[in-house]
Amino acid sequence: MSELAWDEYQRRLREEDAIVFVPVGAVEQHGYHLPLGTDWMMARYMARRVAAKVGGVVAEPIAYGATSQIRTGGGPHRCGTTSLNAETLIALLHDVLVGIGRHGARKIAVIDSHFENRFFLDEACHRAQDTLALRGHEARILKMLYAERINPETMAAVYRGMGDPPGLDLEHGGVLETAMMLYCHPELVDMSRMVDEARPDFPPYDVYPVNPDWVPASGCLSSGRTATREIGELLVEEFVGHVTDAVRSEFR
Amino acid sequence: MSELAWDEYQRRLREEDAIVFVPVGAVEQHGYHLPLGTDWMMARYMARRVAAKVGGVVAEPIAYGATSQIRTGGGPHRCGTTSLNAETLIALLHDVLVGIGRHGARKIAVIDSHFENRFFLDEACHRAQDTLALRGHEARILKMLYAERINPETMAAVYRGMGDPPGLDLEHGGVLETAMMLYCHPELVDMSRMVDEARPDFPPYDVYPVNPDWVPASGCLSSGRTATREIGELLVEEFVGHVTDAVRSEFR
Amino acid sequence: MSELAWDEYQRRLREEDAIVFVPVGAVEQHGYHLPLGTDWMMARYMARRVAAKVGGVVAEPIAYGATSQIRTGGGPHRCGTTSLNAETLIALLHDVLVGIGRHGARKIAVIDSHFENRFFLDEACHRAQDTLALRGHEARILKMLYAERINPETMAAVYRGMGDPPGLDLEHGGVLETAMMLYCHPELVDMSRMVDEARPDFPPYDVYPVNPDWVPASGCLSSGRTATREIGELLVEEFVGHVTDAVRSEFR
Amino acid sequence: MSELAWDEYQRRLREEDAIVFVPVGAVEQHGYHLPLGTDWMMARYMARRVAAKVGGVVAEPIAYGATSQIRTGGGPHRCGTTSLNAETLIALLHDVLVGIGRHGARKIAVIDSHFENRFFLDEACHRAQDTLALRGHEARILKMLYAERINPETMAAVYRGMGDPPGLDLEHGGVLETAMMLYCHPELVDMSRMVDEARPDFPPYDVYPVNPDWVPASGCLSSGRTATREIGELLVEEFVGHVTDAVRSEFR
Amino acid sequence: MSELAWDEYQRRLREEDAIVFVPVGAVEQHGYHLPLGTDWMMARYMARRVAAKVGGVVAEPIAYGATSQIRTGGGPHRCGTTSLNAETLIALLHDVLVGIGRHGARKIAVIDSHFENRFFLDEACHRAQDTLALRGHEARILKMLYAERINPETMAAVYRGMGDPPGLDLEHGGVLETAMMLYCHPELVDMSRMVDEARPDFPPYDVYPVNPDWVPASGCLSSGRTATREIGELLVEEFVGHVTDAVRSEFR
Amino acid sequence: MSELAWDEYQRRLREEDAIVFVPVGAVEQHGYHLPLGTDWMMARYMARRVAAKVGGVVAEPIAYGATSQIRTGGGPHRCGTTSLNAETLIALLHDVLVGIGRHGARKIAVIDSHFENRFFLDEACHRAQDTLALRGHEARILKMLYAERINPETMAAVYRGMGDPPGLDLEHGGVLETAMMLYCHPELVDMSRMVDEARPDFPPYDVYPVNPDWVPASGCLSSGRTATREIGELLVEEFVGHVTDAVRSEFR
Repeated sequence: MSELAWDEYQRRLREEDAIVFVPVGAVEQHGYHLPLGTDWMMARYMARRVAAKVGGVVAEPIAYGATSQIRTGGGPHRCGTTSLNAETLIALLHDVLVGIGRHGARKIAVIDSHFENRFFLDEACHRAQDTLALRGHEARILKMLYAERINPETMAAVYRGMGDPPGLDLEHGGVLETAMMLYCHPELVDMSRMVDEARPDFPPYDVYPVNPDWVPASGCLSSGRTATREIGELLVEEFVGHVTDAVRSEFR
Repeated sequence: MSELAWDEYQRRLREEDAIVFVPVGAVEQHGYHLPLGTDWMMARYMARRVAAKVGGVVAEPIAYGATSQIRTGGGPHRCGTTSLNAETLIALLHDVLVGIGRHGARKIAVIDSHFENRFFLDEACHRAQDTLALRGHEARILKMLYAERINPETMAAVYRGMGDPPGLDLEHGGVLETAMMLYCHPELVDMSRMVDEARPDFPPYDVYPVNPDWVPASGCLSSGRTATREIGELLVEEFVGHVTDAVRSEFR
Repeated sequence: MSELAWDEYQRRLREEDAIVFVPVGAVEQHGYHLPLGTDWMMARYMARRVAAKVGGVVAEPIAYGATSQIRTGGGPHRCGTTSLNAETLIALLHDVLVGIGRHGARKIAVIDSHFENRFFLDEACHRAQDTLALRGHEARILKMLYAERINPETMAAVYRGMGDPPGLDLEHGGVLETAMMLYCHPELVDMSRMVDEARPDFPPYDVYPVNPDWVPASGCLSSGRTATREIGELLVEEFVGHVTDAVRSEFR
Repeated sequence: MSELAWDEYQRRLREEDAIVFVPVGAVEQHGYHLPLGTDWMMARYMARRVAAKVGGVVAEPIAYGATSQIRTGGGPHRCGTTSLNAETLIALLHDVLVGIGRHGARKIAVIDSHFENRFFLDEACHRAQDTLALRGHEARILKMLYAERINPETMAAVYRGMGDPPGLDLEHGGVLETAMMLYCHPELVDMSRMVDEARPDFPPYDVYPVNPDWVPASGCLSSGRTATREIGELLVEEFVGHVTDAVRSEFR
Repeated sequence: MSELAWDEYQRRLREEDAIVFVPVGAVEQHGYHLPLGTDWMMARYMARRVAAKVGGVVAEPIAYGATSQIRTGGGPHRCGTTSLNAETLIALLHDVLVGIGRHGARKIAVIDSHFENRFFLDEACHRAQDTLALRGHEARILKMLYAERINPETMAAVYRGMGDPPGLDLEHGGVLETAMMLYCHPELVDMSRMVDEARPDFPPYDVYPVNPDWVPASGCLSSGRTATREIGELLVEEFVGHVTDAVRSEFR
Repeated sequence: MSELAWDEYQRRLREEDAIVFVPVGAVEQHGYHLPLGTDWMMARYMARRVAAKVGGVVAEPIAYGATSQIRTGGGPHRCGTTSLNAETLIALLHDVLVGIGRHGARKIAVIDSHFENRFFLDEACHRAQDTLALRGHEARILKMLYAERINPETMAAVYRGMGDPPGLDLEHGGVLETAMMLYCHPELVDMSRMVDEARPDFPPYDVYPVNPDWVPASGCLSSGRTATREIGELLVEEFVGHVTDAVRSEFR
């Protein structure tokens, strides 16, 4: 979208009824070997791939996301993790969706890559749809965490040979994200900086103020040592398929 | 707390350094056989049980919670599901926590029972701690979804004899909640009104406006037919134990 | 409402055009002899009594209310008085009213018991009605401080034998509230803990920060010594009558 | 304040520790014979009179106030009644108080003339004091409805000869305000346009949307027919005395 | 508007389709020789003059404006400069415009005199128009900085004889404002207190916290020494003409 | 910043006291020949160039900016112009600045490229500095519209040979932006799609709702026909110099 002139964008909306993709991510630590922009870059990558398949337009990503939680993303205290307050994130996505919808987009797909964003994005989508409907705009909004569903065979392949796989709950800066970045943005991954640390043993609750000792020094919740470009390809192509199916299914 | 005179409450805080429990739930449909207040009642029950063990005080519950999502709670469109906007819920819990903390409580435990509340409560706890700290109050806040962790043996017992257990994702108005309510509030459960419907087959995304056809007519995402008081007891006592362990561990 | 299944609640709204009652109170000190929850308990009591007469449904109370003022409720500094910011209270009642109204309730009665809530509730009702009307819902909202009107004969009976009655301005934790609680929730009143103190002599203004010396040590603005269950019955039954008349008159 | 150069204002604050008065009123209908600005003009008049006595500075009035309620000010639907949302009024007074306090004013007096403003101003004062204290400013804030207290002899004089005085609850556009305006701003009163109507018989509750039939056609809740400049003088001079006493007492 | 009775105001709106003028200014330092209220007084003056020509009504001014910036108004740190937060100013003007528009005004003219208000007023006008349109009101809003356009000949006359005119960017408390105040409010100008200082040499950026050293001691960004009543008349009459043309052109 | 691992980012802040640059732009129509992302791309370009010179880190841009105004950017109604509400933009920049500042950045430079952002960014910077200072962080924030100052000789070169140069007020999608994009992002400029239209003759005011007829069909306020890569280089290098001087001067 940023690279289109306005009239071309208008033509895509009016003549093609094009889907507008809005990637949402985060600026969040992902250990020593992955960049701070891992989340929003992956969201943008997914949106671009799927848009190319279905003929959509990709809006500029919402790069900053919801506050990182200690048990899912290492917490807000770690240097570089730069998050938005809940109200800000909701308002930001709301305004962007309304801006897109009031110019005539009738199919909008929000592609999320940051677990903590979940309910804030739901709130923004819900409210934007209401704002638009009140003013006579008919936009429908689809919202999807691109990695929400993984085939069991894929998981088996990802964890092949690991005696003790960490499980999805500890996949922050671990095998999955490392592998996907090796496939999509290999120049931003530095496998030589990866360290192997004991996985955290989180209790089933949170405390405020956060206790930095809960998280390994690197910020990763599990090791990405076994990640390869091939695993990344497997995952990414599967996710591209899931998102493509979703938008095709909902937007005909 | 509501039943104490203020000076007795003050004594508990100052002399006993008592933990103040804040239950947070929802007013949300749970099928034909469970009441709308299932969530907040269970949160309050848990808080009371644990407070009795550790000598704490239970504040009045926050009964209304975050917007019900269609894939986890049946959605906001269903009659009776009465939710708060994100900003309202955050502000509400924030203000209550600040009110408790500025009067001298140094240990506050937020007990959540509604999945969709998660990140909103995190935001409120985070911010309340900041508000209090800026003004010289030292409160520490623990936040826990009471059912966050379940022992595998318990799950096996819950699903014993079921060829095709629904899994936790579809446990809305299903075996777990039904069983727990049979144990804690049996007078509010009407097993005769339960219906057996095909479980929904949710896609891995959400759409706005919501599509009511995604959810079975009853609003339950799986059947609670096999629920018994005994299963409820098993679950509830385990959860009481987890929450008790949590507050004892964090608040010494 | 919390005890109903959603379809029963829906039936009440659609077939009976039932009135939904929303009690609003406060968590506020009421001296040594009355509990912190006095206000919201009385609001809930009134709503239940009237709902039983007119066939309505009582929603979960909004237990936390507006900031206690020093000259009407003893002030926000007293331990246990746990209040909401103005914006929070307005948003909370607004969201609850909108949640009720958009599911089809056309008659909603807000029953208030906390003097300081007054204009915040007006704002919330006004705005919720607007929010609903914009979206095609026809709810009408009635808002009433249950004790707004008292017959002179009742007041004479309440103050019988007192040479120097305090007047309604000082009736915080005094004869009226004590008597009503003796009637409605006697198990929560401890007459033995009541102390007699000089009534405060408030100036006709407020100062910020508040001056704690303005209020007697107990937090009561007048003595409830002469309260009896009979006086409570007199008051409560009169108020039940006033609220019943109000909803019958407005909602036919 | 508006007429002072900044350095003179600074001198007054630093050398004289001058009290800064902030009048708050409303733009609200007051019948056919009084102007829409009655409230804020009276607040400003009071502030000026008292400032002249005690050597203070009068800030520009906050002319627009809280939403007029039907039973106290005739309601928001009447043409010309131009009010602020609750959050706006709170933020407006907050910002003005903080602006004054952070430049060194240590004594600030908010003079209110509009009944519906009450709790919103409390909230703003409370919060502004907190905002200032957090940043090291020591301002104390006094807030007063200038007409909060009236001597019984004065009331007797005001109502002399009336068989059936309306009472303070119906004194909107009635004898009191008419008389005070005849004394303070006689050029804005047109006694020839006054009409005598039956006083409204308000129920003890409010409904939303408001019912315009509750209020007499003129918008006055009682007649100001018997108002005279002499009555106005009596009232105004008494109120000037009360406000003067208040600020002298609190600010030494 | 403040001096009209409500029915007269209503008649003006309904029968004359009168333009309602809303002046917006600031309370901001203007050196030693001009009063803090210079901005809002000039906005009100302009509105009154134009309203008299076109038969409009002038609403009470919004006296407090947006935060003064150091390079245009001397900055927020200077004693007496009393500003509103952005959200407050937007909400304030929004509410006032909506209040005016929902009572039937179809032509509203916002007259601004404070440079920093610009985009906040745009936002408020934009949103108020939306709020009104959603509810069926047709108000059109014109917003104008009264001094936005100056004829080159006028500027030549203003700066006649000055070897090195400061330019409009430094005209804060300088020749233009001084001259206009000498013409409109001469009793509030004290030419004897004016000092001549070196003009500031601002860099093309801002820093936070502000650096007070950037601004001359007086707070003026250039000298008003050469200001005369005649120059003021020239400017004011030209601006009155521009604003009159604007409202006539847009509102027929 | 997005491409750094967190510990490298931390090292840059702690050991090098690195300046963090935050580009802020807009998604706004710029005629048929320039892309919607022109503003934020130029802001990012400037930040990157200057950061390379002074050794700073560039944070992810804030791509969406303040509502486009009709007289400066063609207005909000044009398809593709996707803007944020004022409160959203302020909160967004505030949160990002606070996120950066609380992790230890002491030098933050906000680089703006969208005229309408101006006062919103001031507000955000002002408030973020306050938020950080209250919590003990010492960040200083510099905010600069990169094109705020242009040397007269440069302007002469830009307009060389034009009999009637448009002036900076009409430079939206005109010679300046076209030339700079030809230099910085030539692949996104399509000179063949440029059309020559009569320049708009804006009145000195705004109206709401906006009148689309005020703006030429292309959305450009003047023609970029004479733009060349050489002119772009001249402008860009000058601006790079100004921004570099600014940050060197303020941050030593």
